[in-house]
Amino acid sequence: MRVRLGDIAARLGGELLGDAAHEVARIGPLEGADEATIAFLSNPRYQPQLAASQAGCVIVGPAMRDAAAARGASLVCADPYLAFARLTQWWAAQTRVAPVPGVHPTAVVEPGARIDPAASVGALAFVGAGAVIAAHAVVGAQVHVGAAAAVGEGTRLSPRAVLGEGCRIGARGLVHGGVVIGADGFGFAPMKTPDGPHWEKIEQLGSVWIGDDVEIGANTCIDRGALDDTVIEDGVKLDNLVQIGHNVRVGAHSAFAGCVGVAGSAKIGRHCTAGGGAIILGHLELVDHVHISAATVVTRSILKPGQYSGLFPFDDNASWEKNAATLRNLHSLRERLRALERQAAKQP
Amino acid sequence: MRVRLGDIAARLGGELLGDAAHEVARIGPLEGADEATIAFLSNPRYQPQLAASQAGCVIVGPAMRDAAAARGASLVCADPYLAFARLTQWWAAQTRVAPVPGVHPTAVVEPGARIDPAASVGALAFVGAGAVIAAHAVVGAQVHVGAAAAVGEGTRLSPRAVLGEGCRIGARGLVHGGVVIGADGFGFAPMKTPDGPHWEKIEQLGSVWIGDDVEIGANTCIDRGALDDTVIEDGVKLDNLVQIGHNVRVGAHSAFAGCVGVAGSAKIGRHCTAGGGAIILGHLELVDHVHISAATVVTRSILKPGQYSGLFPFDDNASWEKNAATLRNLHSLRERLRALERQAAKQP
Amino acid sequence: MRVRLGDIAARLGGELLGDAAHEVARIGPLEGADEATIAFLSNPRYQPQLAASQAGCVIVGPAMRDAAAARGASLVCADPYLAFARLTQWWAAQTRVAPVPGVHPTAVVEPGARIDPAASVGALAFVGAGAVIAAHAVVGAQVHVGAAAAVGEGTRLSPRAVLGEGCRIGARGLVHGGVVIGADGFGFAPMKTPDGPHWEKIEQLGSVWIGDDVEIGANTCIDRGALDDTVIEDGVKLDNLVQIGHNVRVGAHSAFAGCVGVAGSAKIGRHCTAGGGAIILGHLELVDHVHISAATVVTRSILKPGQYSGLFPFDDNASWEKNAATLRNLHSLRERLRALERQAAKQP
Repeated sequence: MRVRLGDIAARLGGELLGDAAHEVARIGPLEGADEATIAFLSNPRYQPQLAASQAGCVIVGPAMRDAAAARGASLVCADPYLAFARLTQWWAAQTRVAPVPGVHPTAVVEPGARIDPAASVGALAFVGAGAVIAAHAVVGAQVHVGAAAAVGEGTRLSPRAVLGEGCRIGARGLVHGGVVIGADGFGFAPMKTPDGPHWEKIEQLGSVWIGDDVEIGANTCIDRGALDDTVIEDGVKLDNLVQIGHNVRVGAHSAFAGCVGVAGSAKIGRHCTAGGGAIILGHLELVDHVHISAATVVTRSILKPGQYSGLFPFDDNASWEKNAATLRNLHSLRERLRALERQAAKQP
Repeated sequence: MRVRLGDIAARLGGELLGDAAHEVARIGPLEGADEATIAFLSNPRYQPQLAASQAGCVIVGPAMRDAAAARGASLVCADPYLAFARLTQWWAAQTRVAPVPGVHPTAVVEPGARIDPAASVGALAFVGAGAVIAAHAVVGAQVHVGAAAAVGEGTRLSPRAVLGEGCRIGARGLVHGGVVIGADGFGFAPMKTPDGPHWEKIEQLGSVWIGDDVEIGANTCIDRGALDDTVIEDGVKLDNLVQIGHNVRVGAHSAFAGCVGVAGSAKIGRHCTAGGGAIILGHLELVDHVHISAATVVTRSILKPGQYSGLFPFDDNASWEKNAATLRNLHSLRERLRALERQAAKQP
Repeated sequence: MRVRLGDIAARLGGELLGDAAHEVARIGPLEGADEATIAFLSNPRYQPQLAASQAGCVIVGPAMRDAAAARGASLVCADPYLAFARLTQWWAAQTRVAPVPGVHPTAVVEPGARIDPAASVGALAFVGAGAVIAAHAVVGAQVHVGAAAAVGEGTRLSPRAVLGEGCRIGARGLVHGGVVIGADGFGFAPMKTPDGPHWEKIEQLGSVWIGDDVEIGANTCIDRGALDDTVIEDGVKLDNLVQIGHNVRVGAHSAFAGCVGVAGSAKIGRHCTAGGGAIILGHLELVDHVHISAATVVTRSILKPGQYSGLFPFDDNASWEKNAATLRNLHSLRERLRALERQAAKQP
């Protein structure tokens, strides 16, 4: 694919500086870009790379208009990162093979499933009784859609995703491979026995309700609720290997990076974020606009927006060992400090 | 489904206070319950919700008999949480579609597999040569049962689970979607080379042995042993995205929450628990009745029952930064404290 | 299978002490070994188990030659652990059923895929248009190979792995069940709205490039790059449930234990290791020969080889609580210590 800069400018908006007839064949990073590459510069930190770049065109913000123009062809946009995002979307739409509507002959569709003629169901997929697949939805190869589940308009389930029985995802969603939506929540009642508790299963009678415009990363799990539903609101983005326990609610437009775990019945607000490996314990509440740093463990509710952190700073192993050993006596250090303070207070 | 309270009482035992002919149509939380809902109250902390609840019936313990009776219909049980668990089980048995015995025509069953006529093998499932599927077992759609694997009586493998070659799970188990039982353990011998070690594979010749009444959460992994088997004893419950390394032994009735990792050859006792994201390093031993808090990393054996913890307390980001920076100098702080103590000891 | 010690010695090299005609039927740990077991001793720490072992033969290093000979039959090798690894490989090759070349009739192969006649494609597998499967490669049952993906010579994809569209793995690789290679990286541009950001998808136009001799554990995820490719170099070993973000580069012969997470665009050197649950944040660089301890969070680049750690030492819960509470005031403790030091400096 080769595209004229003028056509890109027409699509993205913004002011094109340079030859509208110049053609690019790829989108790429500033570094290593050539004449046939369109790149972008959003973070001012990377400005030093701008002058040296051989890119055929660079998307920049108004503040870098002059520096960019001095270098060569540029597209000046109010929000260059957003413009870049939209360029990738348009590029993907041009270059990717569109799924063919219809049901692949090797797919298994149980009686009573309703599949819109404009939907696509791939090879070796399974669609259970009473499931509903809306128009332009794509059920990829080897996907599992359980009985009475619902897939919204234009939503794509990538190869080998599972949407469990009775679960529902809205429109324009994207579910990556290996995702399991609707496994049982982890619920057991301890039954006392002489040698300790045995675990009596609490059947999970709820479901999973997912809004519109939600993306769910590979091998992420969202459990069904015990009695009520687990809820993922509109616009939520979950990365890979995320665990969402039963009856969690994730507020609209929140985003969690890889390996985040949210325990049962936690209520997360809107526009929250969590860095990789963060853990949010069960039955907590996080208000809107709370941001959790990577690897932080949230052990109590957070009622005030802001950034929260809690991770052990890493160090060379020898230094860490000394500090960690001292940490195990930190409370007694404080007591010793207090004693010294008392003694000092008595000094003249 | 509508059920008379009298029928529920007959099934669960306990003392019914109120109209035995009243019918309920769902099990639900106290909050938001209506006339057609049966709820339960186990944790005294939620007692304030009791009086206000519109539930058609509330399951309570003997201590709350009077408070519950003052509100309306109640079922007084010795252990209300256990009674609730059993009610969910009975409810699920009434409302869920029973799997049809037999092998779906699209399943692939290799020669020499033995499938009990009362077992069910779903669409697009694979059952390898020499595998044994016992009576009332359910091999879900798109499940993989490797050669010579064994599935015990009444055990259910959910859609897209994998039970690897030669692995065995006992009776009444439940394996959720995406689980991988029997991948290779992570074993390599370093082969010295001039630029550093290359990794020579140690073939994993053991298997996985899983007892009865075990539940395994979505996308959890249990590796096969290097020489001997990895063992999961009876009644163990594992949540989603748990990693069990090769040659681990998990003692009976232990339960691990989501994202727990247990490294190779660790031996976990009976009736242990681990909170979400906890990590247990390899070759350690935990005795019976050890409880590990969420996100705690166990770096040495634990020979005494009890609760163990080790996580960095989270804070607003600015406070955390100051404390974390100081932590990196904690050992030298201790030295400075010591110096002051010595000096103070010399004071008159 | 029964094997003469003389045949094992001929295959592994080393000096056989004892009866070359003695036969063994299994490889096993020193502890619990019997006459028909060949065991090994590599770590001097386990030497006390040597004298007591009933093993039919023990593989040892030169330093333990005399102790081993005093006990019974021994095979003395320069590197006993490596010799053991190779014995397991030979053993596996003898005892495992070789995959049958050809395409299973239930597999779905799209037009334009090229499958070497010496490759094996299992039941219910999917191979997309334009994919290339090299000689002796094994695409297991229910595996997904996307369009235009490439599988190198002798590489095995275990049941239910996914190799996404356009992704490539080299020769002699091993990909375990549930792996997802080539899901979208987690990339979104914030689009400002009055109530907070919405997330605009950055389409992930790159791919995944995996070298030779790479092993990837169950349910591990490797995301495709945003513009360039994500790269896993030769000889890398990844355990289960590992997350590799978009545009990460993992240098040759590095090895990561279970549940490790590497965020986007991190560059990891050669011969690095990371213990279970370690997290490496995005856009960082780790030089060659960096070793990260389990559960450590790497928050800045590491430019010097060595071992790095950062985890909270666990303790009984009561001790932890006291130390953790003090930790939240650590910075003010330091201020108080300073004040005392100033006061003490004024003392005569």
